[in-house]
Amino acid sequence: MEYAAGVDFGGTSAKIGLVDRSGVVLQRAEVVMDPRETYEGLLRPVADRLRGMVGRQEGRLLTVGIGTPGFIDKRRGLIIGGCVNLPALQGRSVQEYLGAELGVPAFSENDATSAAAGELAFGAGRRFSHFALITIGTAIGGGLVLDGKVYRGSRGLAGELGHLCMVPEGLWCNCGSRGCFEQYASATAIVRLYDEKARKRQDPPEAQTSPQPAIGTREIVERARGGEAIARDTLEEAGQWIAQAFGTLMNALDLQACLVGGGFSQAGEAILEPIRRHLPDHCWPQVGRGVQVLAAELANDAGILGAAAQAMERLGA
Amino acid sequence: MEYAAGVDFGGTSAKIGLVDRSGVVLQRAEVVMDPRETYEGLLRPVADRLRGMVGRQEGRLLTVGIGTPGFIDKRRGLIIGGCVNLPALQGRSVQEYLGAELGVPAFSENDATSAAAGELAFGAGRRFSHFALITIGTAIGGGLVLDGKVYRGSRGLAGELGHLCMVPEGLWCNCGSRGCFEQYASATAIVRLYDEKARKRQDPPEAQTSPQPAIGTREIVERARGGEAIARDTLEEAGQWIAQAFGTLMNALDLQACLVGGGFSQAGEAILEPIRRHLPDHCWPQVGRGVQVLAAELANDAGILGAAAQAMERLGA
Repeated sequence: MEYAAGVDFGGTSAKIGLVDRSGVVLQRAEVVMDPRETYEGLLRPVADRLRGMVGRQEGRLLTVGIGTPGFIDKRRGLIIGGCVNLPALQGRSVQEYLGAELGVPAFSENDATSAAAGELAFGAGRRFSHFALITIGTAIGGGLVLDGKVYRGSRGLAGELGHLCMVPEGLWCNCGSRGCFEQYASATAIVRLYDEKARKRQDPPEAQTSPQPAIGTREIVERARGGEAIARDTLEEAGQWIAQAFGTLMNALDLQACLVGGGFSQAGEAILEPIRRHLPDHCWPQVGRGVQVLAAELANDAGILGAAAQAMERLGA
Repeated sequence: MEYAAGVDFGGTSAKIGLVDRSGVVLQRAEVVMDPRETYEGLLRPVADRLRGMVGRQEGRLLTVGIGTPGFIDKRRGLIIGGCVNLPALQGRSVQEYLGAELGVPAFSENDATSAAAGELAFGAGRRFSHFALITIGTAIGGGLVLDGKVYRGSRGLAGELGHLCMVPEGLWCNCGSRGCFEQYASATAIVRLYDEKARKRQDPPEAQTSPQPAIGTREIVERARGGEAIARDTLEEAGQWIAQAFGTLMNALDLQACLVGGGFSQAGEAILEPIRRHLPDHCWPQVGRGVQVLAAELANDAGILGAAAQAMERLGA
């Protein structure tokens, strides 16, 4: 049996797994990441753990796939920006280190593009050759599958779908631009929107200055399902923004499906239904015909499966 | 010598040419289009003229490429919408007719996607594997080249770049959506913007209701070059919109170049300079690095060359 390793770097840990060709996770592990560590200090424990797992696994390791936040140059796997939580990786190549340590080809990829590769190989993207995935969490990431393949762009930087311009002179974004999608429909933005609505609708108006207890998107979705108007209106507004982003992508790219992934995809129909309802407002009828709006399918292991999938795809395995 | 035919359907005429592999137009002709004609009535004169040209041409005809406005299903070449100036072609396939008449494979394509194929084969796109072309005329069309190939999307409908959403509750567009790019930076929109500014800046204000003599984009560009403030401000504003559209596409697709084509590309630096200046406002610095903003190079023969180029590409010739 042949298998790939998938390594998904987050800000606080790296999730590691061995994945067979059908998407079964054969082994999994987690290594704590200390943001103050050096490049070597971050990667050596990952390599050691991975070697141990491979030693216990029958069959043959084909490749190591790596997902990290940020901009990754596709030729050498250099992280050229955006990996703020693990600054020691900035300007360095994780794929060169882990490839050399494990003795197989290794491939680094932006985590959201990795997630799209995972959905294409093992998840909701299996039935489609043309789709966009947006991952909604603290930020918004994106991945594109075009003509049946993961689309990486000229340097590997494609899929920054959180930075589609939604409002020309809109909210300032971390990227330095204004009006980015991320500022309107990330989990952070959805929580802020909920808080603003809750405060504004308080009666008497004097109470509007009192801070609300901060709640997360999971609680907002629960409240919406329970019929709370503020929560429902928040998801309605988020759904409109997401429909605008998907509509623009569909007009440009003639997609078959739009997938919602990331932590917020647990909202399911509570967010998918308003997106579907508003989507025709934002695209040509011909372009919109038959396009499916779905939640990503890979849940807790999405990072590992995506990292492994993109590496197997690039290896041609 | 092997060559392709290129046929470019406009609202009032079809331009026909024979094109060799290096992009030289060996013969050219024009057939008047009467919008009231039937499918057969429109296409028979084109086929007849084309056969005559082929009869006089040494070498071998490989393929017929066709560019038309509208949405063209890539499998059968059916025009499934958007070809309002030649209603008899709606729901029909030009490629099947001309292919059968000429006895070679024929391929229909949206005219702006054709134009991108032409720039890739023979024009400003030759040096790039990843670029977007926007064609600015009465409307805005678009074509994408990704991974070195013309990108058509899942059904052949990709590249509707005139319908990127620029303003969520902006101007209503012909497509039924709001805030489309076309409403802000087409030649029509640029002329309207100039007229509005000219009227608004009239002194005394009472004169603001008097209609201005309508001028075209060519005259606006001339006046901007001559230093007229209203014309300069008009192009500045158009340049901002175009930069917003290109920036969004660059963030999504990691492009190497952004090309401006169509009639308005004659503006040259008068529009390219403001686009370049505003582009960094609308994309990640990493994504923007090294991206070139250029005018399309193919001028009067762009339609013929594009139609021939996309057919040669699809034939694999």
